Order: sequence, then structure tokens, then C-alpha cells
Amino acid sequence: MIHQIETIVKKAGSLVQELLEEDLKIKNKSARDWVTNIDVTVEKFLIDNILKVLPEANFLAEENTHHTKGFNHLFIIDPIDGTTNLIHQKQNFAISVAYYHQNQPQFGFVYDVMGDKLYKGVTNGKAYLNGIPFTASPNRNNSSLENNLIFGDIYRKDLFKKPYEGIKNYIAAHRFLGSCAIEICEVAFEKAHAYVFPKISIWDGAAALIILKCTGGTWYFNHEIEGYPLNDHKSVMLACLNDSVLQELLQWL
Amino acid sequence: MIHQIETIVKKAGSLVQELLEEDLKIKNKSARDWVTNIDVTVEKFLIDNILKVLPEANFLAEENTHHTKGFNHLFIIDPIDGTTNLIHQKQNFAISVAYYHQNQPQFGFVYDVMGDKLYKGVTNGKAYLNGIPFTASPNRNNSSLENNLIFGDIYRKDLFKKPYEGIKNYIAAHRFLGSCAIEICEVAFEKAHAYVFPKISIWDGAAALIILKCTGGTWYFNHEIEGYPLNDHKSVMLACLNDSVLQELLQWL
Repeated sequence: MIHQIETIVKKAGSLVQELLEEDLKIKNKSARDWVTNIDVTVEKFLIDNILKVLPEANFLAEENTHHTKGFNHLFIIDPIDGTTNLIHQKQNFAISVAYYHQNQPQFGFVYDVMGDKLYKGVTNGKAYLNGIPFTASPNRNNSSLENNLIFGDIYRKDLFKKPYEGIKNYIAAHRFLGSCAIEICEVAFEKAHAYVFPKISIWDGAAALIILKCTGGTWYFNHEIEGYPLNDHKSVMLACLNDSVLQELLQWL
Repeated sequence: MIHQIETIVKKAGSLVQELLEEDLKIKNKSARDWVTNIDVTVEKFLIDNILKVLPEANFLAEENTHHTKGFNHLFIIDPIDGTTNLIHQKQNFAISVAYYHQNQPQFGFVYDVMGDKLYKGVTNGKAYLNGIPFTASPNRNNSSLENNLIFGDIYRKDLFKKPYEGIKNYIAAHRFLGSCAIEICEVAFEKAHAYVFPKISIWDGAAALIILKCTGGTWYFNHEIEGYPLNDHKSVMLACLNDSVLQELLQWL
């Protein structure tokens, strides 16, 4: 099944690119209407095609276009993670599709469409970027957050209780791309030590967290370590390179 | 000459990639020593090769490896713009080379090495990305900053005098990549409405500002509109999609 889902995700990426091309011809339409249309169209495309592969599938999806009946064979979908980037940059957004079964994460895909980077993670297996398996660096588990990089919006007042100057002076720098799924994958692939954001929904992170886990990373979400709420609640996300980075970050909450 | 400089910039990019590969074999060396070595090596490579093309060339370069004799035939060089990204991400950094003559900007290159994106701008001519000329969108000059995107670190206290909540509520969102040269090019190519940062040196922006100007953008730097100081002073940079965005931003200073 995983190969079939991968094909569907890639096709959804082509669909987004077609819709973006199409948009260039459309006038007199608000950016918000237009992007909502893309979100809904892509979500319906994913659900329709997944149902062809697995008719008993259930869905937890951002645009809520399909009423779910249960939590087995559960696909957690964000058709466009990084909607603001799609509107303004036409890049740096991702399609996120995760498969959870019997309340356990099984596999996930994050597809950075314009960058043509397809991240994949299979629980108890490996993480892949465009089919190439990822190998963690030998010193990954020993690496501290101190003088290293954070992705995300560290200044947000609803994130860290202590003044941000503290964490700012502790790290080397922060960067903020604006796509939770892509930023967690960047942490997984050792481009930063952590990704932090105050309000994240399960569909933003469901696939990326599986990928992160495969590479040796860990996280705090839904007020617990390695939490993955199967509901629509938003909460603080701390996605980390390793456990010691997570322990360092938890002190700032 | 411009084609010869373009070739030198591309070769410098290959040199950086070789040095990054080499690094993976080196142990027991601090990240800072190692990257300073890359900066100096790339700067010397650029200067040596430019002198072969134009023996009378002068240089204003971040690593200050060559004593300049004057301000004609002046190459302004940042061998690595986004050094922190190079250290931590091994991506999202750029080589920046600009040519100024008789105190006037002539042409500039910004090469996003790992993204393999070569931006070029020729004063009174066009901007190019990997050789493809850029055409501005028809509504570019009329577009307001309101509900649009800013790149840079909007929260910095040494940037805007008024509280950042004001500007944060005015715009759609901010993003922060950590390479001045790349972020200004992204504004030039209409991926954001502005790039803002409190402390920028001429070598960070010298090439990107030429590219921005070619696309119809404008900026505030060195305490004046479209300033380009030919010295090593740092100052606030506001690089904008158009003049009205610049006027909107100037009200927050």
C-alpha cells in the first residue's frame, strides 16, 4: 500500500502545480478564496484516491471534507501545509499524508512540492529523501542545543514562558520558514536542532513526526513527550534532533 | 567582462561544495575555524581570478584579504553570505559579487550555491535567474505591504522603534532565512514584499540591490533611500518590492 500512497502524493503535487499555473490566468479572485479552493481540491483528490486503494480508510484532514467513522486505517492529511507561503511565495509549502492504524503511526509522507523533495518515514524503519535512505551522523545523540540552530518563531509569547532573550542568547540563531511539516523534516535531516511553534494541529505534524522518529529525533506535543493527538486540538510543538535537545527546550516552557 | 565574472562565481560555488565535502573527512576542528577557512579561501579564489581578468581591480571584501587602492573598478565581495547557515545547515548561503565603477553600481551576482540558483542583475538592464530574464508582474508597482509577507527578523529591537506588534498585525506573516543576499533576491523576484534587518554591511547587499533595482524594487540603506555606502559601516536595511512598500516601512523606523 505504501507505494500506492506515495504515487498518490506525487500526483497531488502535480495537481497543485497545475492549479498554480491555472491561477495565473484567473483575475478578480481573492487570494484567500483561491487558496481555499486549492486546499479543498487537493484534499478531495487525496481522499478519493486513497479510498480506491483502501475503501475502509478513515480521515482526519484539515479541510474536513470527509466525515470519519473511526480511528483505524486513519489517514491524517494536510493538503497544503504552509498556505501563507503558497499564496505569497508559490513555494515552501508541503503536502502531508500520514497513516495511523490502531492508534499507532505507521508511515508518513511530506512532499515539498516546488522543491521537489519527497520525505518518507516508515515506523521502525528508515527515513528517505527522494528514495535515498537517511543515515544519522555519528554524534547526533550527543549534540546540545547550545550554539546551535532553531527553526520556528521563537519570539511568540504563547510559546516560551521565559523572555525570549534567554533562549536567543543560548542558541546560535533562529530561522523561520513557515511550514511545520518541512521544518520538522529539516530537523530530522539535521539542518537544525529543533523546530518550535506555539499552535500546531496533528495534521501539520503527523507525517513529519514519523519521519523525525525514524532518524532518531523526538518531540513534545499535546503536552507530552512524543504525543500525537488524534483530534483537532492545537498545542505547542517542540520537535528536536535528540532527547537532550528536548530536555534543554522543556526548561524554557 | 561580465561573462568572465559569472564563470568565476560559478567556479567559486564548486569550490565551496568541494570544501564542504572535504570537511566531512576532517575531525577535531571547531566549526568557526573551519568556516573562517572557507570564507578566506573563497574570497582569495575570487580576488585572484578577478585580478586575472582585470588587473586594475579594487576590492571591498568581508574577509579583507586584499588591500584596496581606490574606488574605481571596485568589486564588492561577500564570499559566504549566510555563514551560520553554512555551518549548521550546509545550505541557504550565497556567494555575492558586485562590480561598482566610478561610484556607480554596474552589475551583480548572487549565487545560492546549494540551491544552484544564480541571480544576475545589470544596471539599466534586466535581472536573471539561471540565465532566464525576469519580468515583473503587471500590478507590482501598486502592491501594498498590508497583508503581505516580510522576510527578515522583524522583532529585533535595533530595527523598528515602534513595538513589533504593530507591524506584525499589519502584515500577513514574516519569514526569516538568514541570508541577506538571498532574501533581497527573493523580494526582487516577488516572493515577499520586503526584507528588513538592523545591521547590514555593503558586501551583504551590494549585488542583491543591483538585482532588486533591475526588477523595479527599491531600498533604504545607510540612512538614505537607495544608499550604497562604499565602506564597512553597518546599518538598517529595508529592501522593498516597490516605492510604496518602502514608504509604508519607513513609518515604522
